[in-house]
Amino acid sequence: MSSLTTLNRQIKLASRPAGLPAVSDFQMDYSALPSPVASEVLVRSVYLSLDPWMRGRMDNGVPGREAVAIGDVMPGGVVGFVVESNDSAFRAGDAVEGMLGWQEYAVVNGRDLRKLDTGLAPISTALGVLGMPGLAAYFGLLAICDPRPHETVLVSGAAGAVGMLAGQIAKIKGCRVVGVVGSDARTSWLVDEAGFDAAFNHTTTTDLRETLGAHCPAGIDIYFDNVGGAITDAVFGLINDRARISIQSFLGMPDAGPRWLSQLIVRQAKVEGFLVSAWADRFPEAREQLSMWLKAGLLGYREDVAQGIESAPQAFIGMLQGKNEGKQLVQLSALQAAAA
Amino acid sequence: MSSLTTLNRQIKLASRPAGLPAVSDFQMDYSALPSPVASEVLVRSVYLSLDPWMRGRMDNGVPGREAVAIGDVMPGGVVGFVVESNDSAFRAGDAVEGMLGWQEYAVVNGRDLRKLDTGLAPISTALGVLGMPGLAAYFGLLAICDPRPHETVLVSGAAGAVGMLAGQIAKIKGCRVVGVVGSDARTSWLVDEAGFDAAFNHTTTTDLRETLGAHCPAGIDIYFDNVGGAITDAVFGLINDRARISIQSFLGMPDAGPRWLSQLIVRQAKVEGFLVSAWADRFPEAREQLSMWLKAGLLGYREDVAQGIESAPQAFIGMLQGKNEGKQLVQLSALQAAAA
Repeated sequence: MSSLTTLNRQIKLASRPAGLPAVSDFQMDYSALPSPVASEVLVRSVYLSLDPWMRGRMDNGVPGREAVAIGDVMPGGVVGFVVESNDSAFRAGDAVEGMLGWQEYAVVNGRDLRKLDTGLAPISTALGVLGMPGLAAYFGLLAICDPRPHETVLVSGAAGAVGMLAGQIAKIKGCRVVGVVGSDARTSWLVDEAGFDAAFNHTTTTDLRETLGAHCPAGIDIYFDNVGGAITDAVFGLINDRARISIQSFLGMPDAGPRWLSQLIVRQAKVEGFLVSAWADRFPEAREQLSMWLKAGLLGYREDVAQGIESAPQAFIGMLQGKNEGKQLVQLSALQAAAA
Repeated sequence: MSSLTTLNRQIKLASRPAGLPAVSDFQMDYSALPSPVASEVLVRSVYLSLDPWMRGRMDNGVPGREAVAIGDVMPGGVVGFVVESNDSAFRAGDAVEGMLGWQEYAVVNGRDLRKLDTGLAPISTALGVLGMPGLAAYFGLLAICDPRPHETVLVSGAAGAVGMLAGQIAKIKGCRVVGVVGSDARTSWLVDEAGFDAAFNHTTTTDLRETLGAHCPAGIDIYFDNVGGAITDAVFGLINDRARISIQSFLGMPDAGPRWLSQLIVRQAKVEGFLVSAWADRFPEAREQLSMWLKAGLLGYREDVAQGIESAPQAFIGMLQGKNEGKQLVQLSALQAAAA
């Protein structure tokens, strides 16, 4: 490779947004290609994952959430290929996954990379079904909600990277699964392709509670909540005894309104907040199970792939607005490396 | 006994209150002493338990909560002695506990009575430490919150029948226990008699969150919530990672205000609503453990005993206002039976 002529394009945080970020909150920088020293590995990034949690890191730090400094590269999960390695566990050409940030190349310590089995599935799945979204669906549904056959599972944000998988895992567990989404096209995809029992578009629903009730005639046993807000409020009126509600990564939803503590008591229900990172010691087990389901054709998925690092800010903003169809990725370089 | 001359005084629901009940929402009736038929047992009531859940039964029915009909005897747990038995499992003179309602005598099927071991503790404890309050404290703390040594446990309504026991069980489990109460006298009792590490009077606290923070310098791992409202709102700002919050039987608290879903996510915390009846199959195990702790002197308790069935409505209203000091009981007849 010719490091003298290759520049590394990076996207850095330029300013802290209030509410929805603007493209001007990001800036593109060009730096020399970094060189790995002892134990380090140089990676060419192919896919960058864009995820809701990144928005939280753009704010000033709050307890439990580290802020990105102004001028720092935006953080993010990446899959790519090893270019040069000073770690004996990796060789040039290995497919790897790691938190490499919004940049075309990265140098990291080998211990922060995970080698991918390219025979298993396309490498982009390491950011989706077999990555954080798959793990969040797996633990958020199975560990927090313990689904039983014939229970009714409601998933909000059901066409999102996590929601679509949570619903399909619930189907594998024998549940009746209903999805709430933001467009009619997503409704069709969930029912026709992902095997949901039903799905509806909340943006064209006049009475959320009535519509939820019609789709969940036996009440709601499990609510896999990706959105919060009005949908969550409506769900609380329909939960069954001993209902389980898993909540994670709400974005832009007002954290005010009617409360439902009394309903939790009457229904002996629980609401549990959930960060997938807490389950890191069980990731291998979960990845193995998810891989088996994927190979068996039980987990369909969709990817929405923006092209080129320069498209990342706009794609990120669109994802926060719910415009993406499936897991939002940015392709940063070709899947097949050009001759180095 | 001379059933011809004995009347059974009963307190019935006269009207449905809005908010705090008035004495006029109840009416006293006099009926002939009932006679037990096959399998039935006639019981003379000695202590009636007054509990917050009774207020909910005075409203029109909501899902999961049966309403008392106008003109029906108010429901309630009672301990007393068998007068006459057509069930071979009971004999005259046996001490028993059951849901016999607000009345001086009751006839029930023997299967709905539990025989008490009078050698174990005063029979009134069957309505307190060894009754529903004890069981609610036991399961609400141990099963829902899983306390670990050195964790900080906050109990609101800490001088109430359930709260005082939850705090003491947390102490047995090696936790640091802080109580929130409504008077300085209760603060002293909790620290000096019940062994709480600290307690404070929220009615004289100017900044709830600051005071909570001062009493819980290591944050809050477990919140045993008996009250809801402003105290609960303040607690949410101070919970630690993986905090567990058990909620039950709030009364008169506005179910609106700031919400804390985001905080649950950041802290990976859970809020679980809880009805003690759900754990009925484990009551024997719990009663055995509570009895052992009681015998070992590890569970102190207080009782507030009103005298005579005619005092029950006012005592009930006072309990809803938090005026009782300890478990609210009404003594309906003498502990030692008069010669029949």
